[in-house]
Amino acid sequence: MSMRRIITLTTDFGVGSPYVAAMRGVILSINPNAELIDISHAVPPQDIRAGALTLAQATPWFPPDTIHVAVVDPGVGSARRIVYARFGQQQFVAPDNGLLSCLALREHPSTIIAVEEPGFWLPRVSSTFHGRDIMAPVAARLSLGLDPAQLGPVLADIERLDWTEARVAGNKIEGAVESIDSFGNLITNIPEDALTKVPRGEEEVAIFCDEHETRGIFRTYSDQPEMTLIALVGSTGRLELAIVGENASLMLGVKAGTPVKVTW
Amino acid sequence: MSMRRIITLTTDFGVGSPYVAAMRGVILSINPNAELIDISHAVPPQDIRAGALTLAQATPWFPPDTIHVAVVDPGVGSARRIVYARFGQQQFVAPDNGLLSCLALREHPSTIIAVEEPGFWLPRVSSTFHGRDIMAPVAARLSLGLDPAQLGPVLADIERLDWTEARVAGNKIEGAVESIDSFGNLITNIPEDALTKVPRGEEEVAIFCDEHETRGIFRTYSDQPEMTLIALVGSTGRLELAIVGENASLMLGVKAGTPVKVTW
Amino acid sequence: MSMRRIITLTTDFGVGSPYVAAMRGVILSINPNAELIDISHAVPPQDIRAGALTLAQATPWFPPDTIHVAVVDPGVGSARRIVYARFGQQQFVAPDNGLLSCLALREHPSTIIAVEEPGFWLPRVSSTFHGRDIMAPVAARLSLGLDPAQLGPVLADIERLDWTEARVAGNKIEGAVESIDSFGNLITNIPEDALTKVPRGEEEVAIFCDEHETRGIFRTYSDQPEMTLIALVGSTGRLELAIVGENASLMLGVKAGTPVKVTW
Repeated sequence: MSMRRIITLTTDFGVGSPYVAAMRGVILSINPNAELIDISHAVPPQDIRAGALTLAQATPWFPPDTIHVAVVDPGVGSARRIVYARFGQQQFVAPDNGLLSCLALREHPSTIIAVEEPGFWLPRVSSTFHGRDIMAPVAARLSLGLDPAQLGPVLADIERLDWTEARVAGNKIEGAVESIDSFGNLITNIPEDALTKVPRGEEEVAIFCDEHETRGIFRTYSDQPEMTLIALVGSTGRLELAIVGENASLMLGVKAGTPVKVTW
Repeated sequence: MSMRRIITLTTDFGVGSPYVAAMRGVILSINPNAELIDISHAVPPQDIRAGALTLAQATPWFPPDTIHVAVVDPGVGSARRIVYARFGQQQFVAPDNGLLSCLALREHPSTIIAVEEPGFWLPRVSSTFHGRDIMAPVAARLSLGLDPAQLGPVLADIERLDWTEARVAGNKIEGAVESIDSFGNLITNIPEDALTKVPRGEEEVAIFCDEHETRGIFRTYSDQPEMTLIALVGSTGRLELAIVGENASLMLGVKAGTPVKVTW
Repeated sequence: MSMRRIITLTTDFGVGSPYVAAMRGVILSINPNAELIDISHAVPPQDIRAGALTLAQATPWFPPDTIHVAVVDPGVGSARRIVYARFGQQQFVAPDNGLLSCLALREHPSTIIAVEEPGFWLPRVSSTFHGRDIMAPVAARLSLGLDPAQLGPVLADIERLDWTEARVAGNKIEGAVESIDSFGNLITNIPEDALTKVPRGEEEVAIFCDEHETRGIFRTYSDQPEMTLIALVGSTGRLELAIVGENASLMLGVKAGTPVKVTW
């Protein structure tokens, strides 16, 4: 193949982990022309939900046919499956433990295959590191043109986590903080779509998060002075709460899961 | 294009941020052959000055025509401009907020262009993430051969931060700690040039930093025993204070901005 | 050269360090087609032993003829040598301070050459950053086909650290925790080979680490309930102690060097 094939890596191994390096080595040993791109190795250890959000946020920006390998795998070596799944134009190889289920909120995968055919794995498979021994070699072979249908039997669905969506009722939206970004901004599960009829003015709308309150929905951070709690639709297309110039999560002590309410 | 084009990324998004991954995806979607290289994603959040120092320190080592995308952008979505600038043989795309001004201490940019032509951006531009929606696609198109002149109007200068330079007066140099490296070494704003006439012997020269004092300017760390405060000209070409085998910044409680004095 | 050449980087500079970026720039300036892959930049500062373990763990997975540049170099600028060494099909450029000595436990390097010929270095060499000024350009030139024999004279051996191996005596193995991975799992120096005759059942074998005890050697983490201390042969081929779903190192206060005993 002369075409360059992109393989991304997402793990909870920690930045600088030699486990990530071993996966890179395995992939390049099978396909020295694979183009390795990191999505994140800073997913909190064994936090499948955080890994699922990271995948849903980052992978849609990649070129068609990118192969995304994701390893947040507390059940490694147990009965949990490994799956190949295609969502739109993106391909994924991951443990079937919910890690792909945030992607599945937007669209059903067009192909789901159980990764069961050991001929495409490393010859010796450990019980504790399927990222290196199964997922990396499978991704490398897919990048060389392997037909996913050869990996194993077709499945009807992937494992789903429970993703509570924001509820709109009358002049009120009830949601929650879904993740914290590296600036400490509070990203909610309230999508832009739910806000189309919500007025933006400071006299018209109030946003509550825990015991904290802010008024108005703004366009960007610099629309308010430093140290102000501000609400806006962030770059992920969701309502976001931030303290201008500061880390809102640390300053307010707010974590993922905290309820958020919008009233107007 | 058969030639390989290097695009570097420097942000304050944090290592492992899905925002960085989104930028990588956007670039590769436009130019799948771009070669992505990280400079740093560990610039302290919204610290334009630290980002500017990182760029000045790392980018001169890259091959001619490398495209450097830098995003430390607390004013995103406000009136601050985005610029394309060429310094010598290196190209930059960044918010015009001082992020390129440490580079500009060494040489004036030969070209400065306001990035204003939306035809080269993503079709939908958020108010809070111009790194992904404007700077990444512009860099990708430059890597495919786009003439920078098409990005927008020519500007006379970039935004400048106030970079205080060390003052030489008689047998004394007054400067400051400018940055702390990952070993905790204190990098000053006193360049090697200012030290050409300064004697190096322990009986001849004293260096003061806060209430701390050390004597002599040495060649390398191992010229003194462990736990000793030592002064030397570091790999950045500037006077540096270090504690051999230890983290000087943590042990002495010294931060960027602390005055440094050399007397002989 | 049309062939793609992989150069890996391992340093203690810290993730996001501009020093790493400078090395990347130097390599790409000499060979723009080099394929740069990170092994780790999170080796603890000046911890040669940790760097040596990282190299031994990650590099065997890479394709033949990969060039590994490793810089954990507290003695930079002193009399310590820089070496080129070939272990099996992998090539290394590193300070000769023990950093390659964990690799040497498995096999003797087939070639060892002192890096002494300045014609292959940067024109101006600092006293404090030989990673950038000597090792990076040497690796880049090797990737372009330079014969390692031209780098300098052949050496008989590399510097060795003292690596205590686990001792098997009767129905007892005495070893130690050798490293802690990013999950907090305790990786010992007891290899799988030493365990071939050891029974696995909970009534048959006990493992002691400091004042902590666990019974049985299991296949994978999920073989025991959450919060249980478990022993298993990990993906590095060594006996490993873990707390299911938790960070064993933090919970037990166990660090590298802690004695581990297996009795049956």
